[in-house]
Amino acid sequence: MSQLLEELIEALRCLPGVGRKTAQRMAFHLLERDRQGAARLSSSIATAIEKIGRCTRCRNLTEDTLCRLCSRADRDDSLLCVVESPADVLVMENATGYRGRYFVLLGRLSPLDGIGPSDLGLSQLEDRLAEREVKEMIVATNPTVEGEATAHYLHEMGRQNGVSVTRLAHGVPMGGDLEFVDASTLAHAFAGRQAMHD
Amino acid sequence: MSQLLEELIEALRCLPGVGRKTAQRMAFHLLERDRQGAARLSSSIATAIEKIGRCTRCRNLTEDTLCRLCSRADRDDSLLCVVESPADVLVMENATGYRGRYFVLLGRLSPLDGIGPSDLGLSQLEDRLAEREVKEMIVATNPTVEGEATAHYLHEMGRQNGVSVTRLAHGVPMGGDLEFVDASTLAHAFAGRQAMHD
Repeated sequence: MSQLLEELIEALRCLPGVGRKTAQRMAFHLLERDRQGAARLSSSIATAIEKIGRCTRCRNLTEDTLCRLCSRADRDDSLLCVVESPADVLVMENATGYRGRYFVLLGRLSPLDGIGPSDLGLSQLEDRLAEREVKEMIVATNPTVEGEATAHYLHEMGRQNGVSVTRLAHGVPMGGDLEFVDASTLAHAFAGRQAMHD
Repeated sequence: MSQLLEELIEALRCLPGVGRKTAQRMAFHLLERDRQGAARLSSSIATAIEKIGRCTRCRNLTEDTLCRLCSRADRDDSLLCVVESPADVLVMENATGYRGRYFVLLGRLSPLDGIGPSDLGLSQLEDRLAEREVKEMIVATNPTVEGEATAHYLHEMGRQNGVSVTRLAHGVPMGGDLEFVDASTLAHAFAGRQAMHD
């Protein structure tokens, strides 16, 4: 096979979920059917990695100093939602009617991988809480072991700064079937049962 | 969301099998976790689309005038395998012990899509057959309606040039279960049954 084609296939494998076979299919597709799209992809990637950095206030990905959400005046400064990744911000924005601000950890506490508080910008978050504008910090880390550990750390930080800390509810997913809900989720849903309203 | 991020996500969707959600995941992965891989990917694509063209002899993808298979002296010039795409060359090389030459159509006859003989370089193939070096043309187009139509066209072309034309055998796939083989394949396998050797 052509050397350059081999290099392209190897390079495509840096994409998540793309193995050798898929990379091959992508390479052939780009070269045989969509060279225009390929050119656009190449320049988009180059521009993105050159220009996109982190928002100085919330650490979200942005090409500006302040991201769009931080620079908007119509969001509620008293609410701060802490998420693990920029993708989570997107999900929250699309699914909920949340009108507050965000803070993006870009990771989770994971001592085994050497990821500590400083890697997650937690001192920056603490400074923000110390500004006394935030009244409620909504912790929306993932329901994994590391996410839970991070949530506990954030809870402690909020308490010390006099900020009330809430956590996304755990429970039975909508549209699911009780039979297929795992035991841990069901236990959480049972313990967190709520009164029904008329 | 950031404008450049939005553009990157859109650009990633030119890859086959990549929808909006996957493109998002890829974009975040490149920006958050693998900017080095992203840079390499961007330049690999740019180089590939600039440099990779078609082999002048077999139409396979290559950055040289002649592809690696055409330029090798140790392949048998009397055998010519005709395939639809460069990916098929790769598959044939990996799976079979074939030592002849290839001709890549880069498509298949499809009048409805406006793909005729000239789009597949069939006059170039006819010139090659007229050189009288090829003794056997092995037709390895896909077993689809268009692939079969193309095979018939090639058969006719071979006949007119005094070249014997063979076709990949249709039949029951190895390791399969008769119960799950479709009727058309089973009919082909039955009609093409072969004597068992001691």
